[in-house]
Amino acid sequence: MLKTNRQRLQETLTLFSQYGATEHNGVTRLSLSEEDILARDKFKEICESNGLNVTVDDMGNMYATLPSTTNNPPIVIGSHLDSVIKGGRFDGVLGVLTALEVVQTIQDADIKLDYPVTIVNFTNEEGARFEPSLMASGVLSGKFVKEVMLASKDRQGITFCQALRESGYEGSEAHRLKEAKAYVELHIEQGPVLEHYQKDIGVVTGVLGMVCYEISVDGESNHAGTTPISMRKDSMFASMNIISILRQKLKGLPEDLVYTIGRINATPNIHTVIPNNVTFTLESRHQDPHVISQVEQIIEELPKEIEQCHVSTKKLWDRDTVHFDAAIVEAVNTSVDDLGYTKHKMFSGAGHDAQFIASYIPSSMIFVPSAKGYSHREDEYTSYDECSKGADVLLHTVLKIAKAEVSLADSLANQKTP
Amino acid sequence: MLKTNRQRLQETLTLFSQYGATEHNGVTRLSLSEEDILARDKFKEICESNGLNVTVDDMGNMYATLPSTTNNPPIVIGSHLDSVIKGGRFDGVLGVLTALEVVQTIQDADIKLDYPVTIVNFTNEEGARFEPSLMASGVLSGKFVKEVMLASKDRQGITFCQALRESGYEGSEAHRLKEAKAYVELHIEQGPVLEHYQKDIGVVTGVLGMVCYEISVDGESNHAGTTPISMRKDSMFASMNIISILRQKLKGLPEDLVYTIGRINATPNIHTVIPNNVTFTLESRHQDPHVISQVEQIIEELPKEIEQCHVSTKKLWDRDTVHFDAAIVEAVNTSVDDLGYTKHKMFSGAGHDAQFIASYIPSSMIFVPSAKGYSHREDEYTSYDECSKGADVLLHTVLKIAKAEVSLADSLANQKTP
Repeated sequence: MLKTNRQRLQETLTLFSQYGATEHNGVTRLSLSEEDILARDKFKEICESNGLNVTVDDMGNMYATLPSTTNNPPIVIGSHLDSVIKGGRFDGVLGVLTALEVVQTIQDADIKLDYPVTIVNFTNEEGARFEPSLMASGVLSGKFVKEVMLASKDRQGITFCQALRESGYEGSEAHRLKEAKAYVELHIEQGPVLEHYQKDIGVVTGVLGMVCYEISVDGESNHAGTTPISMRKDSMFASMNIISILRQKLKGLPEDLVYTIGRINATPNIHTVIPNNVTFTLESRHQDPHVISQVEQIIEELPKEIEQCHVSTKKLWDRDTVHFDAAIVEAVNTSVDDLGYTKHKMFSGAGHDAQFIASYIPSSMIFVPSAKGYSHREDEYTSYDECSKGADVLLHTVLKIAKAEVSLADSLANQKTP
Repeated sequence: MLKTNRQRLQETLTLFSQYGATEHNGVTRLSLSEEDILARDKFKEICESNGLNVTVDDMGNMYATLPSTTNNPPIVIGSHLDSVIKGGRFDGVLGVLTALEVVQTIQDADIKLDYPVTIVNFTNEEGARFEPSLMASGVLSGKFVKEVMLASKDRQGITFCQALRESGYEGSEAHRLKEAKAYVELHIEQGPVLEHYQKDIGVVTGVLGMVCYEISVDGESNHAGTTPISMRKDSMFASMNIISILRQKLKGLPEDLVYTIGRINATPNIHTVIPNNVTFTLESRHQDPHVISQVEQIIEELPKEIEQCHVSTKKLWDRDTVHFDAAIVEAVNTSVDDLGYTKHKMFSGAGHDAQFIASYIPSSMIFVPSAKGYSHREDEYTSYDECSKGADVLLHTVLKIAKAEVSLADSLANQKTP
């Protein structure tokens, strides 16, 4: 079987981990920051030196294309180069660099495909500098309005528009990703499931639907020392009561439902004052919209008054489950089998550009394990072996989609690679 | 019965509410701020124009003394002129201005006492600008070290020492309050009890002992979408569990125990991330040290591991219950009866300078009702009638302590006052 070059992939990953390297082995490479621009420049340089044609669209998305002699639409592979603050060395960048490795392997093996292969770097996937996340793929897919996105400001008040212009990566709308044969994105799992089941590859069948509510409990602020318990309207204890009801009922839903109270704020948040308000979020994800509806029902049926406090709920947002293209998923699945790697079919719990691109291009994703499920932190980790297996699966998925026969090329490639 | 001048008290209260007046009828009069200095200047001016002798000690505490022909130690009455940010028009200042009103009434009635009467304004009771609260009474009573207090900084980095010097209210250590016959402090209740029982006066028998713990629950931060519930170490739900245990056990203790979870912080506090840490405070007050010990035992016996999270507890501080001087309490109690006002014997749940002064001077306090129990907020409210009744009780308490016969003076005074 043709395989990618593990050593070269490791070197490329190590090279890119320098752009925005943090003290503790992570990276801070906010979208269109100096560090991101360095990474973009290097990506462009490597692609061009490999004879790829690099274009940039009006959202700063970069496309590096290995041409084909046909007029077929491209097979697109890639992810994003930006990171969160003190993020890891794998999230996003791994998808771009395995795509690069796949193209280099195809070139090394001198395989001629009937489809161009385009490596994409989507701008501002993380939304860590400019909200929202998935910004550029959102514009491409018509989910977000470009003008609104251009006006998004970072904490210094710099607009996305200004940052894009100054980066030198403002290209032409004509270069946007439109028609394509397929889009395949390799990404770290960002969860503990593959590690837990000791599987090499996640065959991703879709992205979980989700809903996020804000729940606010209003009581009355009073002095902690002078107000008898019976005369209080204590929003903290009332909130605990609400959370207990929520948890009890959510436990009755299917066990693959996930739900999280990630944010909680008490007002005034002083140890000697009974809080007059506690506000928290409840975020929940599942593939089945019926289950999500049940979650919403549980939230909406919460008591409006509890322990003399008032309870209000507000839906912050929701998103529908995205189901990836069955044929692409099957191409990934068979590639794993052909390579003799182990796999786990799964939904993505996290959001990815692929979920937006899937609305107009047949798409899927490939996951590789995340040690301890860690992501968005400096100690995010996937071994080079695991990365390399992911690249192999991405390679064979591309070949399968292109329906390329590679047995001869395979043997040639094996002679070439060290 | 001799009574204080309700109209004059109302005018004085209105006058002082201008120093640091806020938009919504409250005051911001941080210790040694421009507004506090204006209030101090006015207090000094009124006292001196009434023939009182004003001195200032090395902590900025002000003393305005109505002399007596004897060499007896003074009867001291007063409170503090400083406020919290967006505090009310009554907290502290009411104790100083009712004391002023009492002295003026004694002067009007031409009563000659065997004891000097000293009105005190304690510096920085609130600790809202310079921590800790009760700073100056703490130094007087030897609870706090003066040099440490002088170094306390406000948010602008200005030390208490510098602010005191620049205020013009740095006096001499020789003027400190040392020996005294009694200290009586009138204060708003800052709680809802008097209003609830419809009583005019709180006869304060002491200040509740308290204990404050910080409880920290450590789990593991992971992505809210990708981490199955069974693989989580969710410090939020674990905390809810701990709080539930705490509440259940605290409910079993005497019902006049108060306990509050006023502060809670989750890390990283993002809706899409399982919190790796939730830290909250539990603060509890009761007059009986045995009950406080039971609270501590409940906290210390909390499970150290719960829902795969680690629980740690840390005592932030405690204070012992202060019992006020029985004779002074009885003087207050009898004064209320003599005046025909209604009363409720109670402990103070809040801290006051009197609790420190009580360590070396026989002390007690008089409470007047707080509407809805509100304090430290702009809508803190006590009616002028209620303030006036408090002033009357303070007056008669002083007279009783001085063992003054006032029947004749009383009738004279009634002719003089409008």
